[in-house]
Amino acid sequence: MEDLKLHGSIFSPFTCRVIWALKLKGLNFECIEEDMTNKSDLLLKYNPVYKKIPVLVHGGKPIVESSIILEYIEETWPQNPLLPVDPYEKAVARFWSKFADDKSLTLYGFFVKVGEEQEKAVQEGLEILRNLEEHGLGDKKFFGGETIGLADVGLGWIAFWLDVLEEIVGIKLLEESKFPRLFEWTNNFKEISIIKENLPDRDEMMAIMKSRH
Amino acid sequence: MEDLKLHGSIFSPFTCRVIWALKLKGLNFECIEEDMTNKSDLLLKYNPVYKKIPVLVHGGKPIVESSIILEYIEETWPQNPLLPVDPYEKAVARFWSKFADDKSLTLYGFFVKVGEEQEKAVQEGLEILRNLEEHGLGDKKFFGGETIGLADVGLGWIAFWLDVLEEIVGIKLLEESKFPRLFEWTNNFKEISIIKENLPDRDEMMAIMKSRH
Repeated sequence: MEDLKLHGSIFSPFTCRVIWALKLKGLNFECIEEDMTNKSDLLLKYNPVYKKIPVLVHGGKPIVESSIILEYIEETWPQNPLLPVDPYEKAVARFWSKFADDKSLTLYGFFVKVGEEQEKAVQEGLEILRNLEEHGLGDKKFFGGETIGLADVGLGWIAFWLDVLEEIVGIKLLEESKFPRLFEWTNNFKEISIIKENLPDRDEMMAIMKSRH
Repeated sequence: MEDLKLHGSIFSPFTCRVIWALKLKGLNFECIEEDMTNKSDLLLKYNPVYKKIPVLVHGGKPIVESSIILEYIEETWPQNPLLPVDPYEKAVARFWSKFADDKSLTLYGFFVKVGEEQEKAVQEGLEILRNLEEHGLGDKKFFGGETIGLADVGLGWIAFWLDVLEEIVGIKLLEESKFPRLFEWTNNFKEISIIKENLPDRDEMMAIMKSRH
């Protein structure tokens, strides 16, 4: 077994991305649950700049920032590739993975804001989903084509977390009638056995997010 | 000559990164100056999601987002590598390049804010520089070691733009006494002939930034 440890939390979408990628590569690793209200000395040592999860520790060396960890995983373990070989297609996959990163806080807005600010956040959220539907997914099954890839893993939280947030707030953003292809993608994504087996428990997730709300 | 066009502006630090990378690779390309107050139809077609510069068009195919363009350049033209071969060292370089991206707006804060908000922005700016000095640069000449690499190209705007902003506002963040290694790095960076030959004119830059201020 590789000397591979992941500091994170199953309830963090950024940690889940890394879990999914490691599992898709068929790797065994130790998962160390971090309490973000009482950060461990090891986490502070491994990620002195951001002090955040996830951190992947491979042979004692820490790699931080989920998008950078995904690239590291792809390069270190080339089996079951997450990125296409062609540099242009690779750039497109990276674009949507980065889009997922850059827009996550905005898409979260409708969950934390109220009144007029929430209305604005809903519009911004819909615009993000529209971009994913029209420019990202097109007619493909997954963002990278016929099989799951880096962009799907990066965007995967939309398939699971968004639905929980929507239920708590009572606002539906990702409606099947408005975004049929993206809606179908969330089902295709969650049907992959490795994803299905590595999602947080929905009831626990609901309880945690309700208390945050 | 490659069919290579760059839509951007020499006064945009995100465009300059791409220019530097292309020049460091020894590539010839056509630079198409975009007027961001009157965006061209071509720019809107190439980057429908963000409608922003820079856009690199290679053989008619557009690549957007400067950090993704840099990866594309590195993969398509491997000569004069910007990234190390080792996946771990590569992850470290990518971390600082991403740090440059993620922190650019925060570091810009002292230039656009006033009063207490500016004071806060100054403290945040100093924290960014401290992280670069202590955790990023260490005792190395460049962020990647002895030669210029991806992180240096990503962070390069600090070596040129920051000084212009500081002069306009009358606040010095990057003081030699506080950040001796980072200060030296800015000089090492600007002394590289390809960088020196591909910087915007300082007086023009000053005039543009003064009008924005």
